[in-house]
Amino acid sequence: MARDPFVVIGGDAAGLSAASKFRREADREVIVFEKGQWVSYAHCGLPYFVEGSVERLTDLLSLSPSDIEDRGIDLRRGHEVVSVDPTERTVTVRTDGERFDQPYSELLVATGARATTGAFDASLDGVFTIHGLDSAAAVDAYLAPPGEYDRDRLGDGPVDDALIDHNAALDPPERVAIVGGGYVGIEMAEALTARGLDVHLFQRSDHVLPPFGAAVAERVEPHLDAQGVTLHTGTVVDELVGADRIEAVVADDSEGSEITRADSEAVDSVERSSTSNRAEPGDGERYPVEMALLGVGIQPNTELLDGTGVARGPSGAVRTDAYGRTTLPAVYAAGDVATARHAVTGAETWVPLGLTANRAGRAIGATVAGDPTPVGNVAGTAVVKAFDLECGRVGLVDEDVAADTGFDPVSETITAGSRSGYYPGGDETTVTLVADRRTGRVLGGAIVGRDRAAIRIDTLATAIEAEMTLNDLERLDLAYAPPFSPVWDPVLVAAKVVNGRLES
Amino acid sequence: MARDPFVVIGGDAAGLSAASKFRREADREVIVFEKGQWVSYAHCGLPYFVEGSVERLTDLLSLSPSDIEDRGIDLRRGHEVVSVDPTERTVTVRTDGERFDQPYSELLVATGARATTGAFDASLDGVFTIHGLDSAAAVDAYLAPPGEYDRDRLGDGPVDDALIDHNAALDPPERVAIVGGGYVGIEMAEALTARGLDVHLFQRSDHVLPPFGAAVAERVEPHLDAQGVTLHTGTVVDELVGADRIEAVVADDSEGSEITRADSEAVDSVERSSTSNRAEPGDGERYPVEMALLGVGIQPNTELLDGTGVARGPSGAVRTDAYGRTTLPAVYAAGDVATARHAVTGAETWVPLGLTANRAGRAIGATVAGDPTPVGNVAGTAVVKAFDLECGRVGLVDEDVAADTGFDPVSETITAGSRSGYYPGGDETTVTLVADRRTGRVLGGAIVGRDRAAIRIDTLATAIEAEMTLNDLERLDLAYAPPFSPVWDPVLVAAKVVNGRLES
Repeated sequence: MARDPFVVIGGDAAGLSAASKFRREADREVIVFEKGQWVSYAHCGLPYFVEGSVERLTDLLSLSPSDIEDRGIDLRRGHEVVSVDPTERTVTVRTDGERFDQPYSELLVATGARATTGAFDASLDGVFTIHGLDSAAAVDAYLAPPGEYDRDRLGDGPVDDALIDHNAALDPPERVAIVGGGYVGIEMAEALTARGLDVHLFQRSDHVLPPFGAAVAERVEPHLDAQGVTLHTGTVVDELVGADRIEAVVADDSEGSEITRADSEAVDSVERSSTSNRAEPGDGERYPVEMALLGVGIQPNTELLDGTGVARGPSGAVRTDAYGRTTLPAVYAAGDVATARHAVTGAETWVPLGLTANRAGRAIGATVAGDPTPVGNVAGTAVVKAFDLECGRVGLVDEDVAADTGFDPVSETITAGSRSGYYPGGDETTVTLVADRRTGRVLGGAIVGRDRAAIRIDTLATAIEAEMTLNDLERLDLAYAPPFSPVWDPVLVAAKVVNGRLES
Repeated sequence: MARDPFVVIGGDAAGLSAASKFRREADREVIVFEKGQWVSYAHCGLPYFVEGSVERLTDLLSLSPSDIEDRGIDLRRGHEVVSVDPTERTVTVRTDGERFDQPYSELLVATGARATTGAFDASLDGVFTIHGLDSAAAVDAYLAPPGEYDRDRLGDGPVDDALIDHNAALDPPERVAIVGGGYVGIEMAEALTARGLDVHLFQRSDHVLPPFGAAVAERVEPHLDAQGVTLHTGTVVDELVGADRIEAVVADDSEGSEITRADSEAVDSVERSSTSNRAEPGDGERYPVEMALLGVGIQPNTELLDGTGVARGPSGAVRTDAYGRTTLPAVYAAGDVATARHAVTGAETWVPLGLTANRAGRAIGATVAGDPTPVGNVAGTAVVKAFDLECGRVGLVDEDVAADTGFDPVSETITAGSRSGYYPGGDETTVTLVADRRTGRVLGGAIVGRDRAAIRIDTLATAIEAEMTLNDLERLDLAYAPPFSPVWDPVLVAAKVVNGRLES
């Protein structure tokens, strides 16, 4: 009797990486159920579509449905898996008003995450999150004057026409409130500034990009200001006001909070819902806006596993082991829905990012095909462009988080040139480096600058995953040539300075 | 009785790094003898001064003599150490026609290297090497029409006026032969093209930049051509012809040789003297030129140690151990004069580069001050700009060299985007990756591309020094954001492909 197929739920990075790898290595059936119509799209490109630097929405697609089928994958779009029966090894699928049960030999849950809207009324016109191609298309349509939206921008994809038509018919906004200064907030501030909007960015804690640390924010914030973005840090947005369409946000700068440890750890989910410290109506200041963009966090799509007893980890994400296995037999999880192991702390963590999804999917595809392959750790590596500044972070940047994890952290921030001082075009590069005082182990770091700053975080990411000490890091034979780096790369300068503090 | 001073020979990167670190950590005397007048200058900046992107020669100085003295260092310029007596622990110093003996407690030989001219007649006017500030100043003066040289270009430094005057008085060249396609040759091709010259680049072996491997050269060579550089690969320059001033080079393209293993290993010394296979006069083709620039290699300045019995390593450089100690008691060596340990092979090697000099000098300064500090390994990391292309290499790139060292090498070259495909401004990045088939260990790699390619070699350098395997490398949590990197960084793509070959 033939074995039941490998079933994958979710047709984006993790799911399709798994299915593709599996089909290359095994001669067995794989079915991918995707509840929507879009598959294989680049989430991280959405702000750049809105900005206009990506010409068409469909440029963000990596593989077409026929590409996927050419790989021997049985792709079923418009198929929502609503429940899993781990005892019977079946999933229940809903499509076109019908339901059916699909048996599986192995199951991969790669359902991703969705943007949260906290306690806000996100049903008002002009209020958006950026998650999925349709959301970016809706924003793009909303920015055009009524009747003037150029639908060529959408390319030839399965867009939600009703959503586009609705937004394209509304008057375009002049002022936007971006709620949350994490990287979606920063990228959208750049995108909407490029589109000519008057951008107000609200960040509850005392600086933007909390996971990147204070030194990065100290350079990003004046740069945002210089680009015309009005920053409101330490300010809580209490309410989105409007009848049908948003008319104002109400925000209170007396409620600004310290950055919490959870904020510092979470790379993606940097701004929590403001429910817990919501002010009484009337307390805050009213900012008239015609658009609000919510970047207040994301949450894993785990509902289909309710009732299965599957173990959960941080933020309710599905707990997985070194091979991406959940606590249910033959059920794997990968991507934004799953937890991972942190390279520094060894603890379970939830850092939903693109490479993690691709890598874990690919590893699980190999494992299910018979070649057990670890999914790898996450180091919390993240980079973001903030107009002309490049920002990067990895590992444990926050000393309090490092101390909570049992380390004895020491941290320094240095500034060094990105090129030899005499060579034109360089920029000051700011590096924060965190190490453990007892062992000298490198724990984390952050970088900001205009010239090749972000990519330098890869040196630290590699050093951290190799469990290097400051001595190891300081003695690395890194590249030097005047157009690209000074003799001592900024990362090496930081290593020397932190090491000097350890020795003193 | 007070101890004799720490004596340092050579006032550039290694020597001054040692003296500075020593003075910060010890309350003892340090004397630095420098035979010339220039100290603390950036060798790697010389091509960019000639190019004109560095405004003044003195912009290449890092520390002034008074800066050095402010650090408590007894700097003696115009003092040449002519011999060392390791039994008596003295050096003999010549200055202004006098000689004296200087006792030392510890001695650091940091005399650097000098450009070689092979069998060529380098006494002809219009023939240059690029080594030291005076040589770059001479080239700069030679490029100006008689009487029109702008001496402001030299800044306020101890230039060799006679040399400048002589070259400034000569007619400027229109065509230049650059002999040697190593990185000095490539950088000078760019510089002299920018200065309006018709540049001919001669490379004995079959591609330029031998230590970077064939894949890098395959992109660099057409790019040089597109920039107007005429390339003569596989062509041996036999002779520089002229009465007082150079009139032509004679070169033979029937003598072109395979890249030797020594070529592939040596990062700096890429083109050996052509003495050994010099053609009979009349064999070759005559290329009229008014300038020749020799980039045929460098050799360590070790003459002052003749007769001491000090052990030598590759290329005659002074053998040093993990702490920079020579085989003579209390005598250290660092920088371009000294050997180092290779991070991959563990063998003694000679890779004279700037960071190695600074790092070893600093470590020896600490060691002599009482804090034993290893100088660190070299990984052979090197980067070079070739007009718009960025090139990098590290470790063992040549499979034959790797095999000679006892590895079972497997190598692949891949091409991947530097950014997400939909994001503008990216470029194809070509990565060659070499690993050991038996252990999976990463042995070396090379990179070329226009967009942030060179700096990516640091990821490989870090991985190699951490002795990572392909599995480790493939699972690294590297940075991803559309403006800076695709989901799978080109380095990760290369790791996947080479790993795939190992598994098959």
